[in-house]
This record gives sequence, structure tokens and C-alpha cells, in this order.
Amino acid sequence: MTHAIKARIQDLERYNPSQTAENDLQEFWSSTLAEYAEKPLNGNRELVQTPMSGMDVYLTTYEGADDTPLHAWYLTPKAERGTKFPCVVHYHGYTGSKGMPEHFAHYILMGFAVLSVDVRGQGGDTGNRQEQSYGAIRGWVTPGILQRETAYYRAITIDAIRATEWAAAQPETDAERIFVIGGSQGGGLAMIVPALSGIPKAAVAHIPNMCHMDFGILNSNSSLSEAAEFVSRHPEHFDTVLRTLSYFDNLNLAPRIRIPIMVSCGLKDPCCMPETVYAAYNRIASEKEMRVYPFDGHWVSDGQNRLAMEFLARHAGLV
Amino acid sequence: MTHAIKARIQDLERYNPSQTAENDLQEFWSSTLAEYAEKPLNGNRELVQTPMSGMDVYLTTYEGADDTPLHAWYLTPKAERGTKFPCVVHYHGYTGSKGMPEHFAHYILMGFAVLSVDVRGQGGDTGNRQEQSYGAIRGWVTPGILQRETAYYRAITIDAIRATEWAAAQPETDAERIFVIGGSQGGGLAMIVPALSGIPKAAVAHIPNMCHMDFGILNSNSSLSEAAEFVSRHPEHFDTVLRTLSYFDNLNLAPRIRIPIMVSCGLKDPCCMPETVYAAYNRIASEKEMRVYPFDGHWVSDGQNRLAMEFLARHAGLV
Amino acid sequence: MTHAIKARIQDLERYNPSQTAENDLQEFWSSTLAEYAEKPLNGNRELVQTPMSGMDVYLTTYEGADDTPLHAWYLTPKAERGTKFPCVVHYHGYTGSKGMPEHFAHYILMGFAVLSVDVRGQGGDTGNRQEQSYGAIRGWVTPGILQRETAYYRAITIDAIRATEWAAAQPETDAERIFVIGGSQGGGLAMIVPALSGIPKAAVAHIPNMCHMDFGILNSNSSLSEAAEFVSRHPEHFDTVLRTLSYFDNLNLAPRIRIPIMVSCGLKDPCCMPETVYAAYNRIASEKEMRVYPFDGHWVSDGQNRLAMEFLARHAGLV
Amino acid sequence: MTHAIKARIQDLERYNPSQTAENDLQEFWSSTLAEYAEKPLNGNRELVQTPMSGMDVYLTTYEGADDTPLHAWYLTPKAERGTKFPCVVHYHGYTGSKGMPEHFAHYILMGFAVLSVDVRGQGGDTGNRQEQSYGAIRGWVTPGILQRETAYYRAITIDAIRATEWAAAQPETDAERIFVIGGSQGGGLAMIVPALSGIPKAAVAHIPNMCHMDFGILNSNSSLSEAAEFVSRHPEHFDTVLRTLSYFDNLNLAPRIRIPIMVSCGLKDPCCMPETVYAAYNRIASEKEMRVYPFDGHWVSDGQNRLAMEFLARHAGLV
Amino acid sequence: MTHAIKARIQDLERYNPSQTAENDLQEFWSSTLAEYAEKPLNGNRELVQTPMSGMDVYLTTYEGADDTPLHAWYLTPKAERGTKFPCVVHYHGYTGSKGMPEHFAHYILMGFAVLSVDVRGQGGDTGNRQEQSYGAIRGWVTPGILQRETAYYRAITIDAIRATEWAAAQPETDAERIFVIGGSQGGGLAMIVPALSGIPKAAVAHIPNMCHMDFGILNSNSSLSEAAEFVSRHPEHFDTVLRTLSYFDNLNLAPRIRIPIMVSCGLKDPCCMPETVYAAYNRIASEKEMRVYPFDGHWVSDGQNRLAMEFLARHAGLV
Amino acid sequence: MTHAIKARIQDLERYNPSQTAENDLQEFWSSTLAEYAEKPLNGNRELVQTPMSGMDVYLTTYEGADDTPLHAWYLTPKAERGTKFPCVVHYHGYTGSKGMPEHFAHYILMGFAVLSVDVRGQGGDTGNRQEQSYGAIRGWVTPGILQRETAYYRAITIDAIRATEWAAAQPETDAERIFVIGGSQGGGLAMIVPALSGIPKAAVAHIPNMCHMDFGILNSNSSLSEAAEFVSRHPEHFDTVLRTLSYFDNLNLAPRIRIPIMVSCGLKDPCCMPETVYAAYNRIASEKEMRVYPFDGHWVSDGQNRLAMEFLARHAGLV
Repeated sequence: MTHAIKARIQDLERYNPSQTAENDLQEFWSSTLAEYAEKPLNGNRELVQTPMSGMDVYLTTYEGADDTPLHAWYLTPKAERGTKFPCVVHYHGYTGSKGMPEHFAHYILMGFAVLSVDVRGQGGDTGNRQEQSYGAIRGWVTPGILQRETAYYRAITIDAIRATEWAAAQPETDAERIFVIGGSQGGGLAMIVPALSGIPKAAVAHIPNMCHMDFGILNSNSSLSEAAEFVSRHPEHFDTVLRTLSYFDNLNLAPRIRIPIMVSCGLKDPCCMPETVYAAYNRIASEKEMRVYPFDGHWVSDGQNRLAMEFLARHAGLV
Repeated sequence: MTHAIKARIQDLERYNPSQTAENDLQEFWSSTLAEYAEKPLNGNRELVQTPMSGMDVYLTTYEGADDTPLHAWYLTPKAERGTKFPCVVHYHGYTGSKGMPEHFAHYILMGFAVLSVDVRGQGGDTGNRQEQSYGAIRGWVTPGILQRETAYYRAITIDAIRATEWAAAQPETDAERIFVIGGSQGGGLAMIVPALSGIPKAAVAHIPNMCHMDFGILNSNSSLSEAAEFVSRHPEHFDTVLRTLSYFDNLNLAPRIRIPIMVSCGLKDPCCMPETVYAAYNRIASEKEMRVYPFDGHWVSDGQNRLAMEFLARHAGLV
Repeated sequence: MTHAIKARIQDLERYNPSQTAENDLQEFWSSTLAEYAEKPLNGNRELVQTPMSGMDVYLTTYEGADDTPLHAWYLTPKAERGTKFPCVVHYHGYTGSKGMPEHFAHYILMGFAVLSVDVRGQGGDTGNRQEQSYGAIRGWVTPGILQRETAYYRAITIDAIRATEWAAAQPETDAERIFVIGGSQGGGLAMIVPALSGIPKAAVAHIPNMCHMDFGILNSNSSLSEAAEFVSRHPEHFDTVLRTLSYFDNLNLAPRIRIPIMVSCGLKDPCCMPETVYAAYNRIASEKEMRVYPFDGHWVSDGQNRLAMEFLARHAGLV
Repeated sequence: MTHAIKARIQDLERYNPSQTAENDLQEFWSSTLAEYAEKPLNGNRELVQTPMSGMDVYLTTYEGADDTPLHAWYLTPKAERGTKFPCVVHYHGYTGSKGMPEHFAHYILMGFAVLSVDVRGQGGDTGNRQEQSYGAIRGWVTPGILQRETAYYRAITIDAIRATEWAAAQPETDAERIFVIGGSQGGGLAMIVPALSGIPKAAVAHIPNMCHMDFGILNSNSSLSEAAEFVSRHPEHFDTVLRTLSYFDNLNLAPRIRIPIMVSCGLKDPCCMPETVYAAYNRIASEKEMRVYPFDGHWVSDGQNRLAMEFLARHAGLV
Repeated sequence: MTHAIKARIQDLERYNPSQTAENDLQEFWSSTLAEYAEKPLNGNRELVQTPMSGMDVYLTTYEGADDTPLHAWYLTPKAERGTKFPCVVHYHGYTGSKGMPEHFAHYILMGFAVLSVDVRGQGGDTGNRQEQSYGAIRGWVTPGILQRETAYYRAITIDAIRATEWAAAQPETDAERIFVIGGSQGGGLAMIVPALSGIPKAAVAHIPNMCHMDFGILNSNSSLSEAAEFVSRHPEHFDTVLRTLSYFDNLNLAPRIRIPIMVSCGLKDPCCMPETVYAAYNRIASEKEMRVYPFDGHWVSDGQNRLAMEFLARHAGLV
Repeated sequence: MTHAIKARIQDLERYNPSQTAENDLQEFWSSTLAEYAEKPLNGNRELVQTPMSGMDVYLTTYEGADDTPLHAWYLTPKAERGTKFPCVVHYHGYTGSKGMPEHFAHYILMGFAVLSVDVRGQGGDTGNRQEQSYGAIRGWVTPGILQRETAYYRAITIDAIRATEWAAAQPETDAERIFVIGGSQGGGLAMIVPALSGIPKAAVAHIPNMCHMDFGILNSNSSLSEAAEFVSRHPEHFDTVLRTLSYFDNLNLAPRIRIPIMVSCGLKDPCCMPETVYAAYNRIASEKEMRVYPFDGHWVSDGQNRLAMEFLARHAGLV
């Protein structure tokens, strides 16, 4: 039986829009990553009491793209000193936060350590020392957008990469078994980080943003609508804004991914639209699996979460 | 003059998506109908007083797919004993009811008898003895959807077929002049009944649902969104749900229709979308007419109602 | 400093509408509870594999108000045979389900066992053998509403009470340390259960429904709007519906609560409106605490969840 | 049992806001009515074919406040020449029309004749020869609103009064048994007509507008929002607009009603709000009954329609 | 770099739907314009005081398609008697008005005179003496729509053409430097006027309506939705309505434009959709420029306003 | 005639909620203002070409609460060197910008100079060097809100005060005739500035925010909803946030105003609600006038703008 939904998915599987990369994309990232290679993380951590006696909870900070202290939970199963755990690094969705330790209790019960990081400036308790040197639209997307060097996406991408380094630096972490995961903005980060860093060994990108952003800025209701509104007010910056975005677009960076990755999308998602997710996914050359939900909007279902747990357990050798 | 609206309609007239029928579709219905051939209707009726002295009103019950007493108005013009009337069988839209006798007064003034039936469980006073053996989404579409035998659509289709038998069983009905009519859910039933029963002699299916349901479940805001939400929560049942729907999809059953039929649709209807209506309509091989309303949404206009009255009067030999 | 928000809360603390109880309320519940005293639970359980090696997961069923098999997760920390855990019984919100074992991982890490039950017929995989003998509005509130004996609220209240008995019957449960918790519909149940059962030793009712339902049916957008729509279609049943609701209204039953209880509400909650929550809360005579969130709508915040965890840990002697 | 809904209704029953009448209200209407006493109706009628053989259908026109030909259906049961029928005069809601003859078939089956009139300019096929001499807001409420003599409400009130005269002029009408009915705008007219004319012998005003318009213009989403928008654009006309409205406000005219009247309202009606309906209703001194629907918005339910049918049958001596 | 937005614009630049003109389009306009050639403007003007001492303000009236006195501001820089100014004629958007003199202060500071006209009947203080001879939909689009001679679009087009004549008739106007400008409805007029009149020397049509109306009536939420609703109620008038619209559709008239014109559109405009604007624009043969805003909806941005100011200054020889 | 609208306004005129000021409010402002007394403005300005030859346009920057260069238009009528103009200082609404010089052309034609300033960080081209040291809600209200010294409201209030100093420092300004004006956020600033500075000689506060913020944060949909959402996420900061707001609430500061002020409000404004505007207004002791619009929402009408022009012209001695 063939039907309208299969046909829709097949179209997406064949969707192959042009990349939007500038010529110096690879060079930009080489030099950017080189710049941070020697920068210290300046991290610290502090044990915190919670009602969950089966979990050790550390409130930590580290530095990413600048000297802003980035807050993150580092969580481990209660264990003998010296035990090493595989570690899941978690990135949250736009306007969210690192959450509460209890949100990650299931990973602890699986035998993972967890590093859940704040994305700078958003809903957690992490600030943002990047200066705003121009007017902006409500939100974090447009401050600094006129230059790739000052773009918010650059800062959070580097913050996210360095989160994996901070995870690796914890004595309880088995640095060979670090994984990245997230949804929406967090999914975008969970896709761009393995494109730029060798630390993660597998990734889960639920309904990722930062994919095919030229399409998304025109058609979606995602946080890119802040960039759209910015251009609407300052039409002279149209090309500049699109150019800046191209450096952080997984459409251009996905071919660099070298690890197994699970990606999900919902056919009814008006935010991280299926066209954008597939456009990037179709360019991944490594081991990959797509989980498509015909009737899901912009959310991650319980079933998809479970699949991610199983995927990570498998790659961590926990099952 | 050609124009955008004509072009849109011409596209619809040529729209021809694949059928979704399983191989045993015909067999399923043969055996299902055979199963009910001998089942008694167990009907009864009771005269009811209303302020309309020109109409005889009976509150009746009969049995359809199971032993649930299905409530229906049977209405006739006030007449001499022994008079036989052509009879309109009316199916209501989703969440509606058999209505009030006064809603059908115009058919009485035309010289029709009317049987207006409750669809089980919905907004009338008819219950539903089909047991709910699994979790469900608010509404009637998903209980039982995991098997074609327990599907709500199966029950209401059989209920609707047997309504025509109950109409025929009334002493005031001329059994050779029975017609079916309805809008939305009622339109879907008014299309599926003549595909499966020889009793009706003409049909009017306003903005029918139960057409091209693989498309509707993905794109419309109809009651199929309950099935979509069910799959969203239980993704493992995706194939099963689509399979169940296929047995009750007029896309697959429309070729069996052998009587004159009038169908309507609105180009702005987000519920029973024009693609779905045309997909089924284009497969009808008997005498047919489509009434398409370029600017109508999900409603049946006064003008379309009048066309239906004239269509039925013509086929009943009343004009 | 006094201000508008303090003033609003003080008004709520003094809000004292009339109870709506019929004279035979206490008798109704005495005889109802007596009727179920001897009915067996007919439960069974089955060990299920999950990726969480630190948790034992059982899929269980038991019987509540009738012979419908009610599904529930029973979860414990991985432990030596014979260990006894305090147990949290969880009731979900309207249209929800018992969820996934991972949703309760934090309670496992605290040292609790958890019984998370489906509410019959709703979004889990539990059906509903209560027959629908009359027409209804989409949803579960109105089938059976014309009699207190067949009311859905009666069934789910008894189901919820018997869930605590089923929890107590598990060998890993310390029957002296059973607690009930839930939000919205689940909060309503977590309030009515201790009013009618001696099993729970403390309760957490987040943004509870089933409170001051005469007010809620008129003013809120909660599931009571199904009852309102039912009356709108069948105005003759207005008194009957209000009467039925009164037997399950915590406004009338709250004085029977004898255990410590934490209740929460949001001043911007249009569903379980603050007037309704306070009206019931103000009638509780036992140890109680209200957590009011001036700017929260119909949700349970992370902070409130943590407070509940601490409250339950305290009453379970886990801290 | 007392409860929140009863309390709300009791408050409405005691609601007694000030009248807003100018000193010359009675004089205005005396002279206005006198002005029209001698004006001929200049009516004509034409028999029209429909599929309803039991009904005689005439498309008629008559003149009201000016020489605009006002269209109206005049409908009677098929009958012997010389038969006289009691007659229902029907006024439609805002933006509506006289409808189709089939909409009134139930009144024909009761033994009534029906005159269903277009309100000038709105959705029927009747134009409007009142000249627009000033800018306006989309709709019919504001043209002419700066003077009571040119106000649209004046024109449609006179049109509505003269409709009863036109009904009386039909040879098939029993002029002693003329009744008026309508909902919303039609309800407003069905209330103001008996305040100003002795022709109707009973009235049904469903969810009437034109009541307590000073309240409605501030708080409702009715057609008065056109007047509100007009004042918003032309604030200098605030007093003038309120003054004009006062001449057509049933709050001021209701005490003049001398016939039995049935009024309805819905507590959730944001358009013809219950405060406005009760304010006028409470000032009626003749035989009256209020039908209040606690959970109904701006619609007339089937049950309320049936009550109206029974009310009119009773007053027409048909039962 | 190519990308999704460029691709979208390129598609629009190639968009070339069929014209919808009747055979007698040119003849209709020849005879219509001839009919008005000798009709006097019957204008008058009156000096008005404002707080702006640098501007002379006249409240004027003139006659357009009939004897309705059309109100318009005529504004000039405070200047010596005998000075001649280039003059901008301004048409407002649907439901708007000629505005306030201060809205045009920037044109005065540039050295322009301004004539800002009311569109008849809408939100200014200009009435409308065109009689409404048939029922209508709220708004101005449908009265008279059944004949091209009585169509509202005809009246406002002639009013708009004659506005340029009235501007030319002012002693302070340099009749060789008259320009037309407007947005939405005003943009449609600023496009149709130069197609039909030789007076304007350049035009600015922001987000114009009255373009490709067969597409707009089906797909947009513009004032054409009034025409759509009219057809929805009176389906028998479908062809007539589309035919009437075709006489006033810039899709058919744009080839007649002989002057420089700037047009704008927003890709996210659901009202004057980009397909409709480009369809007409692509048919213009004279000097033209399109300003397309990828992320703009139905508004005229500050930047686009400035571009219009510069465009007009250039064509007026002011820079 | 008394009526519902008059009654509503009279209630507002008597509305007198408690002030929320801390004991050290006056001291806080004394020391804050003292701190800035000697800080240089570090301004500069640059002549800019526009198409408006009658206006001199300078793009300027100055420093306010910190070293962020604040952008502002300084505009004067084209005039002889040495001419001194009264000057209007304009503050924009939330998310807005200093706009375009053409927006202020009417003030130029009146004989005013204009200083229109960007509010830091918002939609203009002015950045914001205040560091964000904690997580935030989208927008500008919450960064820094945990301390009155770092509060955004403090920064923009000082920026706004110093804007008047920068206006006074321009050689074309008559420093004895400086006025402040704005709407919404701009209205709040136009009210707080004269409470704290002796420079302005009259003020116009259209629909001002920053009034009775304890009420607004609970009930309005203004930018205070950002603060509400912040507290919703961080309930532990409830008291702190309300305390911070109290230092910038015109409810507490209005009694310090010593100049004539015009205030406006709309009874249907859900953003700057009439209760909040009147609460502050009722505490003003100087010459004042309220312009209340019964049917206006959150906008400033043309008529109100004209009243403001006349008010300022009067106080500037221009008429």
C-alpha cells in the first residue's frame, strides 16, 4: 500500500537544496577552533544536596567562547570513588535552561553521567558577557549577527563544543564515551558539535534547528523569525545576515560528521520544519538514522526519548 | 476567460491518487454484510406530540452493528393510513445528533418521510455498547481502531446501512424510493452506504469525510486528527491505523456505487478538504454531479441544500 | 509593602463559598466504599526490560470500580529481595497516561517505589468497560453523568482509591508509607483519595481539579466544559448534572482529609482556577500548605515539583 | 443547594442600571410614528415555485422607512382560498437575510403563515436607499449615526414595524394573530416593535441586541463595536453617538411593551451579554418569561427554538 | 551563494498568469473616461488653522464619479503667492482616510504640495451617494458589484483619476509635476490611475491590491474576501463578480502604464500576496522598479517610505 | 444622562491603591542623580542628508547611564545660524527605535527642534553595554532585575533624563523650552523624567507604562509579562523583582512632578491598563489633564497626537 504520507516522506528523503556555504567556511572553522585550542576552561564545581540520594550532583561553571561563567549540572550515579561513567552532554531548547537534576535521573539509572549546560543568557542562571553593540530584536539571535565573529550562534557553538571538553575533564567521566544530545536548539547544537569536534562518539539531534536556515528564516516560526524581523527593520543587512547564518548552518557542516547520529523530525513541525531537518540530514555521510513522526509538531515524544536512551545505551556499551 | 479558480478546479478534476485498499477489502465487506443479513432490527416506535400538527412524529429505536438501541426520528406528512411516502434517511455530522423533527419540516412539505438517525455515542441520546478495550483520544474515532472488526467506522457504517432497512420497514415508507443524505460525517456515510447496500436509490453527500483518509489524516483538521493524535502517542500503531482506515475509505469503495449521487465540496474547507472529496468522487462510475463552492469552508450553504432538495424530489418523482 | 498581588491572595485565603453537598453525601460514600471493601483487586504484574538498569519495572494491572483491567507501572529501586520502600502513587492529568518509567526515575533515586496508574479510557493503554448508555460530549466527563452511580468521576475515584490498595499489596511496598500525588485531574484525585481512604499518609495536589465545580463549570476552561456543553445541548439535565458533580467535589469532601497535604495553584490558571482550588483548600482541617504562583497558568513548575519531592521525602522519613 | 450559577442569575435578576433616555424620547417616537401613519406600503407579491408542494411561497416587497423596496418571504400552508392563518413575522440576525422558505417549514406545519423580512442592506437581496453622507465603519451601524433621524436603527425599527403591517395586509393573514420573533438583531427588533406598535399580540426575543447599549458598546463584541470604532476614530462624536443610540435602546423602551413576551439569554454570550438582556427585560411590565442558559454563548439552541414554537402556538390558539 | 529566498523571488519574477480581461475592456474604459471628460469637478476649498505654521492647509471637496462631495486635504509649504509646487496625490488603504495634515509634513519639508483624498464612504468624513440596490457584505467592495457600471471599484478609480485633476486645478500646483502614491488599496489606485490617465508623471504603488484578483479572491485575506463571501452567499453570481473585477484588475491594465513606477511587496503578505503584485508588475512595460521584502507582511516599512520619498524627489527634480 | 462609560471613568478617577515605595526611595534617587551630576555626556553629532530640504538632520550620540553610545536624531527647522528653538524630546515605545527624521516633520513645521532618542538595546541601532550577569527572559526587562542598581529601568530612566541634558546642550535649543513626550514605554519615561529632573517644562505621557507595576505585572500583557515570566521560572525572586520595580514606578514618583502634564489612556488597553495609568495620574499634584478614550486599546490616536501638538505649542509659546 502506498499512500500520501509515504509519498511525503519519500519526497523529503530526496530533498537536496543547494548548500549556502561561503568559500572560506572550512578555513573559518579551522582558525576559530585553533584559537580556542589553548584557552583554559577555568571550570569549578561544587557538590549540591538534593533529595535524590542515588545521585551525586555538582553545580559547575566553565568558560566557553569568552569569560562568561557558563553554568552546568554535572551528575553521576552515587558510586565508589574512581568509577568512570560514560557521559551524556545535554543541550536545551531555545529560551530553556540546564533544567533540574531530576530531569536527568533516567540517565543516571542507566549508568550515565550527565553534563547539562545552560545556553548563555537564556532561561537558566547563566549570563552573557558578549556585548550588544547594535540594536536588536527581542531574544538572543540578533545581537552580534552582523559579523560571524560576534554572532550568537558562534558563541553557543563554541560553548557547546567546550562543554564536551568540560565533561571530559571530570574525574568521573570516561572520556572515550562522551555523547551529545538535545532537541530543537539543543538538536542543532548536537549536530554541529560532532561536525566540529572529535570528542563525542555518538549524537542524538531531536527536531534540530540550525539546519537549512535560508529556508527556515523564510518559512518557519522558529527563533530565526528574530533574524527575519531584524532584516525586516534593517533591510540593508539582508545579505549580511544570511551570510552570517551560513557559517553555522548544519546544511553546510553536516558532511563533516563522522559519528553515528540519530535525528528526528515531525511532519507537522512549523518550527524546525521537516524540509530543514532532512536537508541537513541527507548530507550526513556517517552512520545515521532518521525517526520521522508524521503527526508530530514541535515536540519530542516519550517514544522518541526512549529510542534515544536505547541508542545511547547501545553506543555506550551499557546494554 | 480562464482564471486561477478554474485552474484549481481542473486540477482537482484530474486528481487521481492511488487507492489504499488491502487485497481483502471486497472479501471483508462480503463477509461483514453476510454476517448482518439475518440479524433482526429489533426496532420499535412511539408516537410523539409536537406543535407541528402537519407532521406525524415517531421516536424509534433499532439495532445496528450490535445491540445498542439506536435512536431515530421517523417523520411523515400527516396522512391517511396506508399512504406510502418516499423516504429520506439522514445522517448527521460529527458530534451532532438526529436533531429535532422541525429540522426536517421542509422534507415533509415536499412529501417525503424522513428517518433521521443518531450516530452512536455522539451528541444525541444514543449510547454505544461497543466496549473500549484500549486507551483513546477524546472523541469516537480511536476506540477500537486497532482492528477493523472493532473500528468505530465499521460500527457506524453498519448502523447507517441498517438505518435504510429500518426506514424500509416502516409501513408508511415506499421501500423503492429510499434516499440517503448527509454532510461531513453524514456525507461520508451517505457515500459509503450506497457502495455497500442496494437499498438507497439516490444519494446526496455534502462535503463528505471518510474520503482519501491517508491524505486527510496528514493534512486536515477533521475528526481524523483524533487518529493522528493517537498515532502520535502510539507511533507503533501507525501502519495498523492506516490499514484500519483503508477499509472504510470511500476512495476505495466509491467504484462500487451504482446509483445517482450528488456530491459537494468547498475549496476553502480545511476539514473535508477538496483533494479528499475529489479523490473519491473521481472514482465514482455511476451518474454523478459535483457542486463545488470556491469560497466555502466546512459548511453546507442554503443554496446547496436547495439543490439537494431538488435532486431528491427529481429522483423521487415528486416533481 | 502591600501590593495588588498580596491583596489578591488575601482575598483568596478568605474565599468561602457555600458547599453544594446533598444531604446524603456521607451516606453515599459510606455505602459505596463498603460495597468495594471485599471486591478483590485481581491484579497481576510482569517484569519489563528497560535501558534503566537501576530500576525494576513491572507492568501491572488491577481492577478498580469494575472489571476493566487498569494498567499501572510499578517501579522500584533495584534492590535486595525483601527490601521495603515507601511508595508514591501517581495520578496523571486529563487525557494523559501513566507515562513511561523514566518519568519517575527521580523518585527511584530518592528511594521510593512508584505506582503510576492510567486513568481509565484516557491516553494510556487502559480501556473502559463502563457502558455508555446515552449520548455524550467528546471526552470522558459526560458518559454516565446522569446518575451518581454511573458517573465517570465515581469510577475514577474508586480506581484511584484502589490504586493505593494495589500499591500496598506489592511485596516491595512499605504499606505504612504510601503517598498520593498528581496534577490537575491527578491533583483532584490526590485530594479526594485521602478524603475517602486511610491508606495514604500524605498527599500532594498540584493545581487540582474536582474543586468547587459549580464555579468551575461556569467559569473555567477545564474538562468541566464538557459537562457544560452537555447541559447546553440537554438543558433539562442542568440540575441533575450539578447534583452528580456535587458528590465528587472536593469542596464538599475536603473536611474529611486527615493527613498532611500540599496544594498548589497558579493565579493565572484558567483551567483549575484559583477560586476553585482555594475554596476546597480553605475547608481542609488537617496540616496543610498552599503554594501559590502569582504568574503561573495551568502547569506545574520545576520548582513546585522539587517542593513536592522534598515534602514527600520528609513524610517518608527519607531525609 | 445554592451554587455559583444560581447566584449569578440572581444578581442578574436584580440588575437595574439607570435608563439613558433623553427627555424627548416619547415625543420623538410619537411624532415619528405619526409621520408614518399615512405612508402607503406600496407592496407587491409574486408566487414562486419551490420543491415544497405543501407551502405557498410569495416573494414580496414593501416599503418601510423610505422608498427602498424591502424584500420578504410570505409563506402559508397550502390551503383553500379564504383561509386565515395566524402569522409569524421573523427578523433575522445581523448580516443575515430573510433566508429561504424551507427555514420556516416548521411554522407552516404548525398552521402559521410566515413573513420573513430582509433587514435593509444586509445579507439578503434588499438594498438601502438611505444615503451615506459621512464616513463610516465597515457595516451598517454607523452610517447616519450622527442624527437620530438618519440613524440606521431608526430605519430598521420602522421597517420592522411596517413589516407587521404588511403581514396584516395579506389576505391569508388573520390580523388579530400576528406575532414577532427573532434572535440577536432580530431579537432586538422583536422587542422594540411591540414597544412601539399595537399589531403584534406576542413576541419572542432570543438573545436580543439593542438593549442597554451604553454597556454593550463598552463591553460586548456585538455590532455595537462598529459604533465604538467610529467613536474611536471620531472622539468628538462620543456624546452624539450615545445620544442617538438611546432612542433605540430597549432599556428605555421596554416599559412600553403591553403583550406577552419570551426572552432568552446565555450567560456566556459575549455579544448580547446577559447584563444587557436582563437590564431591558427587568423593565418589562407585561407578562414575560426569561429563558436563561448558563453555558450558552451567542446562539439560539434547538430547545429554545422549540420553546418559542410552543409559546407562539399557545398564544395563537393552535394548541 | 544561491538560497531559498532568491529562488522564491526568481519564481515570482517569472510568474506570468493569463490575463482575465473581457474583449471590451479597452472600449469600456475609453467610453467611461470620455463620459467624464466634460464633467466639472465642482470643487471648493477652505483654509484651516493647524499648529503647523510652516504649512498651508486647505480642506477641499471635489466631485468624482458622481455628485458625492469628496473630501481631501490640500497642503503646501508656507510660501509666497504664485509659487508652484510639484504635487503628490495620496490614496489611503482600505477602511482608512485622508488622515491628518501632519501625516504629510515630510512631503511639505521636501517642497511638495500634497493632495490627500478620502476614498468614498470609508473611514474619513466623506459619504457615498452611490445607492445600494442589493444586499451586501459588510464593507464597500460588494455594493454594486453585479454590474461594472455600478461597481465600487469603478467609482473609486474615477474618483482617484479626478483627484489628480483636482490637484492640477490648484493654483499652487505645478501641473506638469503631479505624482501618485499609496499603499494597499492606495497602491492599487496608484497603479490603475496612470494606466488610465496621463496626468501623473511617476507613481509609487506600495503593496498594491487590485492585482490578479482571480488569484487574490481565492487565496488572500484582503478586502476581496468580501467579494468571496458575497459569492459564497449568492453562488449564482460567481461569473458576474469575477467579470466585474476583471475591468479593474491591474493584471489587465498594467500594460497601459507609460510612466516610471516603483512597486513594493512583502513575501509574507497574506493580503496583497506577492503572486498578485508580481503578476501585474511583470506586465508593466515602462520604467519600473520592484522593492521586495522577504520577511515583511502587509505593511509599508520606514525604509520603503524613504525610498518612495527619494524616488519622488528625483522625478520631481527636487534633488 | 448617566451611563456605563461615565460610571467606569468615575471609578477610575477615584482609584487610589497604596503606593509600593520602599523607605529609601527618595534617598535612592538623590544619590543616583548626584552620581550622574558630573558625568560628561561625551556627545557628538554629524549632519546627515535627507530628501527633506526644510529640515536640518543630525545623527548624534551621547552617553547616559554608562558608556554605551546612545543614538539620537537631533532635528531643527532649516534656519539662520543662531536661531534658538523650543525642543521636544521624544521617547519611543517598547521594542521601537528613534525612528526616521520624517516621523517628526510635523514638529519641525510647528517650529520645534526635536531630539528623538533610541532606548538602549531595542529596535534602533543603539547597543547596550550593561552586562547580562544572569539568565533572562526574551526582551530587555529582566536582565539586571535582581538589583535596583543594575535594573534596565534604572538605565533607561537615566538615559532619558540625560537626553534632556543633551537636547539642552545643542546650540539650536532654547534650554528653557524643553519638553518630553512619548507613548507606552515612552509615556512612562515622559512621566518619570519630570519627576526626577527640572529640565522639562511640560510633558505628554500617552498611555504610559511604568505605572502601578504591581497591578500591571499581574494583570496586563505589557512588557512586564517578561518580569512575570522571570518570576514564574525563579519564584524565589518574587519579592526582589517587585522591590526593584517599585523604585521605577510612577505610582511612587508621580507626586514629585512639578510641571504641566497631559496623560492619555484607553479603557480597552490590555497593555497599559487604565487602572495603572489612573493610579499614577491621580497622584500628580501639578497642572494636569487626562484624555481618556473609552473604546481605544493600546494605541495613540491621530486626535490624541493633535492634542499633544497643541498642548506643546501652547506651553512653548508657539501659538
